[in-house]
Amino acid sequence: MIAPSNALNFSGGPGALPESVLRQTQQAIISVPEVGLSVLGISHRSDWFAAVVAEVEANIRRLLGLGTDSHVLLLQGGATQQFSMVPMTLLRGKAQAADYLHTGYWSGKALPEARREGPVRVVWSGEAEGFRRLPGDDELHFSPDAPYLHYISNETVEGLQFHRIPGRDDVPRICDMSSDFLSRPCEADRFALIYAHAQKNIGPAGVTVVVVKDQLLQDNPADLPGFLDYRTHVAAHSNFNTPPVFAIYVVLLVTRWLQAEVGGLEAMAAINRAKAALLYGALDGSDGFYRGRTAVADRSLMNVAFNLPTPELDRQFLEEARLAGLSGLGGHRAIGGIRASIYNALTLQAVERLVGFMADFRQRR
Amino acid sequence: MIAPSNALNFSGGPGALPESVLRQTQQAIISVPEVGLSVLGISHRSDWFAAVVAEVEANIRRLLGLGTDSHVLLLQGGATQQFSMVPMTLLRGKAQAADYLHTGYWSGKALPEARREGPVRVVWSGEAEGFRRLPGDDELHFSPDAPYLHYISNETVEGLQFHRIPGRDDVPRICDMSSDFLSRPCEADRFALIYAHAQKNIGPAGVTVVVVKDQLLQDNPADLPGFLDYRTHVAAHSNFNTPPVFAIYVVLLVTRWLQAEVGGLEAMAAINRAKAALLYGALDGSDGFYRGRTAVADRSLMNVAFNLPTPELDRQFLEEARLAGLSGLGGHRAIGGIRASIYNALTLQAVERLVGFMADFRQRR
Repeated sequence: MIAPSNALNFSGGPGALPESVLRQTQQAIISVPEVGLSVLGISHRSDWFAAVVAEVEANIRRLLGLGTDSHVLLLQGGATQQFSMVPMTLLRGKAQAADYLHTGYWSGKALPEARREGPVRVVWSGEAEGFRRLPGDDELHFSPDAPYLHYISNETVEGLQFHRIPGRDDVPRICDMSSDFLSRPCEADRFALIYAHAQKNIGPAGVTVVVVKDQLLQDNPADLPGFLDYRTHVAAHSNFNTPPVFAIYVVLLVTRWLQAEVGGLEAMAAINRAKAALLYGALDGSDGFYRGRTAVADRSLMNVAFNLPTPELDRQFLEEARLAGLSGLGGHRAIGGIRASIYNALTLQAVERLVGFMADFRQRR
Repeated sequence: MIAPSNALNFSGGPGALPESVLRQTQQAIISVPEVGLSVLGISHRSDWFAAVVAEVEANIRRLLGLGTDSHVLLLQGGATQQFSMVPMTLLRGKAQAADYLHTGYWSGKALPEARREGPVRVVWSGEAEGFRRLPGDDELHFSPDAPYLHYISNETVEGLQFHRIPGRDDVPRICDMSSDFLSRPCEADRFALIYAHAQKNIGPAGVTVVVVKDQLLQDNPADLPGFLDYRTHVAAHSNFNTPPVFAIYVVLLVTRWLQAEVGGLEAMAAINRAKAALLYGALDGSDGFYRGRTAVADRSLMNVAFNLPTPELDRQFLEEARLAGLSGLGGHRAIGGIRASIYNALTLQAVERLVGFMADFRQRR
């Protein structure tokens, strides 16, 4: 058996990180170069950590082209906490329903948390069709009076991704970009609030980035606990209570890598398109041996979900892939099958290795 | 200038970790031995991570001698989130006030979060006296009808620690042990709920341990968001949404170290008592040059807060200590002065180095 390799880790997340980031992180466990102490033992009230937060924020601002009307926050609790914080902040006590799109497993998880806080209208649901496609514009009738629209740009489980921005520009648009944040330019200015946990494209599990327009924070409930109030975190520069210092430091290293080694989001998107084209090409050229789950127009550049002709072949594929050193290819427990997650840190060479394995496996059947 | 050393890091937290834990953590950044992948890229739904959580729980159970009527949870959000989760769970909608002790900076932070949820009675406050001592038993009149008593076992900022367990055994006793958890045996069975963030004695910032009796979770509000409901986390074995995998892995390594290298909590407490005795001895034998902040009976074994005769001498002390490779000795921003935090990972040798520096500094003045 070949040992699994970080470079060939197709996990849905927590997933692969760039090799250079892992090397710098390894060094920092013993000594952060500019401090001389383990990153695990530096006070969150140190000048060093304030500079880390400021640089992460500046890097994200530069990568997304954000204006001064947006705040960049680094929070705990993952996307799940955002499922609640968004409606706590913007829906509690409202009479008008918020618009939600139900396009897969994760947008479905957001719905009950929103309904706990106020009225919700599901504008479109793909549930009856098994979440195999996204809605066309002609199927989407948004309310002009909704407090906000919430949707997920990339459904990690099913492998569906919006390649356009749905919604009305006169209604606050809120997007969970957990699984494609910083994988491509995203016209950030058109969103009132974006959130993304780190563990797909930008770091380890334990920190969540929130980009929020200042105007969204003008009229929020006054009685929220401090840690659930965006304004607390704005005022404290993401240092209200002890932040996850280590996870934030790794996000810093990834944003530096994105800028200095990759060359920004256009360059990252070009690489991600090439990787996805190669892998979907392998599905499409397999005479039906590898079967993509989703409509071609809505295919995700991040998560490529597919099946083989039988569940037994799925099982054999995963076992042989593992023995070949390719890891993390099992589909999400909700739907099974195969899922190759090809986040930013997965290289074109890694996808070539996977595609080579797929050709070989198919030939042997 | 001597480079700072992880072994001489007296930071109030995030603080020092044992050298052997740092070495294993460094290895795991590239490859967890039994998996072959970076700890940052292993799925939280893997068998490996389920085993990590199970072993952390088992180790904490063994160290504390917990019975089967307690749950051990690993959550996000720090002690601050627990300041809210406790009263959300046990005080919301109640007519009877919960009893709170106000013994320092951090117990003061818990009060407004509790008052947001229900009635609070401050049984005793040391605020008027500048938090220089803890209450005697004759000053404490607890209510037999309180939903619970909340207190903090060790006030990190002021350096005050309870060396007994206050409260009535017939009222649920809830304790924030963030800064002395697993530093000594604690009669865990006498607490209905214990919480402790990791970044003092047991790991990096980003994960919080909660030990809660099952009977406390029988009649909780039904409308809490999932991530704020202890029962969600009990049912999901601390894997409701993506947990901070890395931080939990480091906690695993620390609990292994506590058992295998230190030899359990009695042995740890003996080491911690020896360290504190050495350092307080240096204060007491300095003819008033080093002035402890707190009453002798309530001195913390974890945080030793003191002042020199003038603020200028405080400043010089910190500067020269830094140049001597001793770091993290600045007092909390709320009160200034000097604070030597001597958590589990700080060795007796490190305290000897500090005491030697203190003698030398004093002699030169």
